[in-house]
Amino acid sequence: MTIKLTALPNGIKVFTDSIEGFESASIGIFVNVGSVDEKSGQEGLSHFLEHMAFKGTKTRSALQISSAIESVGGFINAYTGKEITAYHTKVLKKDVKLSIDILSDILLNSVFDKDEFEKERGVIIQEIRQVNDSPDDLVFDLFQEQAFKNTRLGTSILGSEERIQSYTTSDLENYIKSKYATNRLIICASGAVDHNEIVEYAEKYTAGFSNFDVPIVEKQTYSGGVVSKAKDLEQVHYIAGYEGVSHTDNNKYDLCVLSAIIGGGMSSRLFQQIREKRGLVYSIFSFVSNYRDTGTFGYYAACAPEKAKDVMLYSNEEIDNILKNGVTREELERAKNQLKASLLMGLESSSTRMERMASQYFYHGRIMDMTEVAKNIDAVNQDSIKHIAEKILTTNNTTTAIVGPKDEINNILQEAV
Amino acid sequence: MTIKLTALPNGIKVFTDSIEGFESASIGIFVNVGSVDEKSGQEGLSHFLEHMAFKGTKTRSALQISSAIESVGGFINAYTGKEITAYHTKVLKKDVKLSIDILSDILLNSVFDKDEFEKERGVIIQEIRQVNDSPDDLVFDLFQEQAFKNTRLGTSILGSEERIQSYTTSDLENYIKSKYATNRLIICASGAVDHNEIVEYAEKYTAGFSNFDVPIVEKQTYSGGVVSKAKDLEQVHYIAGYEGVSHTDNNKYDLCVLSAIIGGGMSSRLFQQIREKRGLVYSIFSFVSNYRDTGTFGYYAACAPEKAKDVMLYSNEEIDNILKNGVTREELERAKNQLKASLLMGLESSSTRMERMASQYFYHGRIMDMTEVAKNIDAVNQDSIKHIAEKILTTNNTTTAIVGPKDEINNILQEAV
Repeated sequence: MTIKLTALPNGIKVFTDSIEGFESASIGIFVNVGSVDEKSGQEGLSHFLEHMAFKGTKTRSALQISSAIESVGGFINAYTGKEITAYHTKVLKKDVKLSIDILSDILLNSVFDKDEFEKERGVIIQEIRQVNDSPDDLVFDLFQEQAFKNTRLGTSILGSEERIQSYTTSDLENYIKSKYATNRLIICASGAVDHNEIVEYAEKYTAGFSNFDVPIVEKQTYSGGVVSKAKDLEQVHYIAGYEGVSHTDNNKYDLCVLSAIIGGGMSSRLFQQIREKRGLVYSIFSFVSNYRDTGTFGYYAACAPEKAKDVMLYSNEEIDNILKNGVTREELERAKNQLKASLLMGLESSSTRMERMASQYFYHGRIMDMTEVAKNIDAVNQDSIKHIAEKILTTNNTTTAIVGPKDEINNILQEAV
Repeated sequence: MTIKLTALPNGIKVFTDSIEGFESASIGIFVNVGSVDEKSGQEGLSHFLEHMAFKGTKTRSALQISSAIESVGGFINAYTGKEITAYHTKVLKKDVKLSIDILSDILLNSVFDKDEFEKERGVIIQEIRQVNDSPDDLVFDLFQEQAFKNTRLGTSILGSEERIQSYTTSDLENYIKSKYATNRLIICASGAVDHNEIVEYAEKYTAGFSNFDVPIVEKQTYSGGVVSKAKDLEQVHYIAGYEGVSHTDNNKYDLCVLSAIIGGGMSSRLFQQIREKRGLVYSIFSFVSNYRDTGTFGYYAACAPEKAKDVMLYSNEEIDNILKNGVTREELERAKNQLKASLLMGLESSSTRMERMASQYFYHGRIMDMTEVAKNIDAVNQDSIKHIAEKILTTNNTTTAIVGPKDEINNILQEAV
């Protein structure tokens, strides 16, 4: 295994995964804090904070932050998830020091200037509206909200427009002070990196971070139900879903394989039955989401409004078919090979390797090498698929999210759901 | 340079670009045919053909095609562009033979079964409707249509729903027979590939292709104008554009650098002026499209409807500012470094290297190595930027595309355009 770990004196852990022959490096600071860590009244603060990190520090303006990285041909960006926030760069190998300098500066020394804050509020409101105008994004937000109704996992990462309007700079200052502790922070670097060098720069630039207790979020629980939003569209966008499993669940790999069989590629059940055999959709696929305590499994389709009931019916038939007859040995082997090949192909991307380290450390407390993950995939068999299918799919507590024309939604809700 | 070329006896050229340390390979058959090659009444046929390639050959059903590649953990896909259609796979190194077998089979031996054709018609109609429901895609389609009005470059790659309804299987059979000649086909492979092996398999599996004359498409000309589409949305999606340059134009790299300065990253003029300073947008960026004879340059923004005029005004101010004062040495160097670093980072992806070979061969008739491209970027200077800015931006013949609420579009069209 090429992965190395050093814990800095302040508690921050530094992971590197060097790749021979690479000229560039992916470097990120990953924070084990996301929208799930927000209390009621704080919705969207993790994401707002991520935006404001780029708006100026004690020694750098917003332009100086982006310009420092872009001047050397690098990229800098960030994203906020339910449980993880990531600030990351991709730079040439000569610029790894600069990268760690900038990433540390924007998290340690952000000034949260009031004028910048007002402008960024406007940017985030436009981001919210962009999701509302993108039905394939919107339906996933609605699905998540319904699946985890009244829990922190169900709240929107962006927050509502009303909430965003209500915040002040001190909300952000308090939020970062209460969450960005060194036991929640790791640095991951992959590609053209030297472990000792990365550790040296990390120690130098992150010395200002301190450790403190961050409250552990209560267990998040799946809820389920039906949610819909009327939009004047040419298609109905539809997700049907189930409670899934957590990142550390013993059946995690069984569910991944089952999902690949149901809707993971062009040879999957749903693609074959709904698109290839019947021509009802352009997009149809299944997905698995894993979180600390729970997860979801589901599938998405977009189709002509008048065909939505057919798509739902034939998709349900495939689920029933799997529950009744299980999966074939052939499709089992195909799905397992797909997952194992994806693992191998991911080794050829420094950003994939960087992100895998962060996810594995946060959820498992250690880095699993590829052999171990491949072994877990290999262990999936027809019996374990039968077991996970029965565990996940034989429930009345499904989650359904629909975005589409009002009349058709009413029509669907009356009969099909 | 790691790139090798062999011309097969039938005229097909095989390019490989081996990458040390890689376990997987990107392999594609690239066809120098796209929607621009369609005559009036044939709109969407290139793309329909690309879809039908996956629907069955003399010896393989649709499921057998996708399953053959997915069973070994590979990916297979295709896309249709204005001037190029690509059929490509990503597979582990042991499966390069299979990959060339399948890619050749779906282009040589497609059966165009009538039932499969009917179902695929439905799939494509859903694809068209999906674009109509995605305002950020739709506005780009409208822009292209208006920029090249009444030319083949202006027609939609997907075709209209009416056209798609009108086709029969013989339209596709005639289209492929008249277009997929060996002088329009190349095979490109990158990653864990051995040149001699790829040539051997290519020769074996593509023996059935023959050469013939494919009519050269007349010169495509830019037209310009204003186009809008009313949609009940929370944002206005807006593109302002200009006639650009062709792939082989001497000023191609000048325009790339200029575009990077105007809207290429977080430190670009538009990002700074419209998002960072004023908080008016979440998404704003510029783009360059190059074709055989012509091209476009433009920028896209999505904003609150009532702020659309402000976004247009301030964006125009930046264009005027560049025309009047040129660009600074600092932003010139930053943009050049961005382009050169992207080149280097692209070397770390087998699919990027595969696609670069195809594009360079089709547009330049040869593969340029990285040093030559980097030299072209290095040659851009403040004078050449001034020259290209004056050439491109001092025109009254702009193209404007707007998607958004009806009232606001009327409002914008009355005053601002």
